[in-house]
Amino acid sequence: MKINVLFTPVIADDLYFTGKTTVVIDVLRASSTIVAALQNGAKEIVPVGTVEFAVKVSGGMFGGQTLIGGERNTKKIEGFALGNSPLEYTEDVVARKSIIFYTTNGTKAIVKAKFSAGLFICAFNNISAVAKHLAMLDNDFEIQCAGRSNNFSMEDTICAGKLISEIEKIKTDLSLSDSAKASVALSKSFGRSIYKMLSETEHGKQLLENGFDDDIKFCSKLNISEIVPYFIGNVLKLLPENGLSLTNEKDNIAN
Amino acid sequence: MKINVLFTPVIADDLYFTGKTTVVIDVLRASSTIVAALQNGAKEIVPVGTVEFAVKVSGGMFGGQTLIGGERNTKKIEGFALGNSPLEYTEDVVARKSIIFYTTNGTKAIVKAKFSAGLFICAFNNISAVAKHLAMLDNDFEIQCAGRSNNFSMEDTICAGKLISEIEKIKTDLSLSDSAKASVALSKSFGRSIYKMLSETEHGKQLLENGFDDDIKFCSKLNISEIVPYFIGNVLKLLPENGLSLTNEKDNIAN
Repeated sequence: MKINVLFTPVIADDLYFTGKTTVVIDVLRASSTIVAALQNGAKEIVPVGTVEFAVKVSGGMFGGQTLIGGERNTKKIEGFALGNSPLEYTEDVVARKSIIFYTTNGTKAIVKAKFSAGLFICAFNNISAVAKHLAMLDNDFEIQCAGRSNNFSMEDTICAGKLISEIEKIKTDLSLSDSAKASVALSKSFGRSIYKMLSETEHGKQLLENGFDDDIKFCSKLNISEIVPYFIGNVLKLLPENGLSLTNEKDNIAN
Repeated sequence: MKINVLFTPVIADDLYFTGKTTVVIDVLRASSTIVAALQNGAKEIVPVGTVEFAVKVSGGMFGGQTLIGGERNTKKIEGFALGNSPLEYTEDVVARKSIIFYTTNGTKAIVKAKFSAGLFICAFNNISAVAKHLAMLDNDFEIQCAGRSNNFSMEDTICAGKLISEIEKIKTDLSLSDSAKASVALSKSFGRSIYKMLSETEHGKQLLENGFDDDIKFCSKLNISEIVPYFIGNVLKLLPENGLSLTNEKDNIAN
């Protein structure tokens, strides 16, 4: 089982992912928000690569029940119903909704990896669930860190390293690329207090300056969710084995 | 004194470097070979971004005394006088010569950073000399790792981390980006035996398979050279303060 980590989305082009298994990580905050939204009963998330496309598809393509959310450079975009704080995506707000979602780094990374045969979203919040699913799949896979403005991001890399370490607890035949080995080493060097590590990264400091300490606290929590967001038909949904959870139950009630 | 590390050349475009101080690192093997060639009396190295351009400029633009060297995917290029092994660049072969130099990753990274106000080349072989020079300059600077086919390279990153640690011994006011902090942490995790670390990287393994164990041994040696290659007028030369060494003495003898 070969594992490679791509530290930023500029390293590989879209076709690189064709047929591969891929995990996208954007700890601060897109992956954490996606996990929160689906956990809280959102029907689906539609990740988009540009604000213009977000506005275009929000016009009804996904039925009446849509919300539009996201950020540009940590700030909510004018006209969007929601920002990119996982704390905004509560059950009251998101249940049964389709959410059109744009963020500076995270959704671009997801859209880039769209040709993957299996594409999953990982945050500290659902790391064990993703590890178990990948160990079960037993495929080689790529971890695409969303990074920051095409540059390296410490928090995504450390989350990648921790994900690999979680899989190592289940599988023993892992073959790690240089970047995967580096991620594991960094998660051991910096990962003891995830909250402290997040607060000291470049992105963490920017979020603190903008008043998002509660988001950092939330994003640092390990395994508060058992769901694995999965990209299929251009939207992110719960994996079929997660399918008996909140979302489908609510759909059944709604129907 | 702010320090940032770019793990691969795709992260920044050429103009990003305008006016900056930049260090390029390609441990296996371009930076090590450049240091060896200048140490052994080469007049200058002309780094080029394509094989075609190497052939074109070798036609006499730099006077009669030229050699053409380099590699593509670790192998010497047909028609080139030299490969990319630092052991080939002996005094007998290179003294007083201009060397047109093309390599898969290293020279491309140098050419990319050509608009830097100061552009220096670092390997384990000359790491303390480069650290001293940067501490003396006291500018913010970028470390451009050559990487490997636009992806992360463990050995370049660890050399970057070690360079930063060397500077930390002289200067106390360093401000490190996430990637710079990660480089320092990795150099502490993996850098105890540089030879062992190099042998276990993806690139190191490929070189071993191709019979270049002696190159890896050579590239792992710390501080066997005191020279700092400096990019000026499209060529790499010794820094002026290194100028009283072998090269100029030889030039004087030649004149």
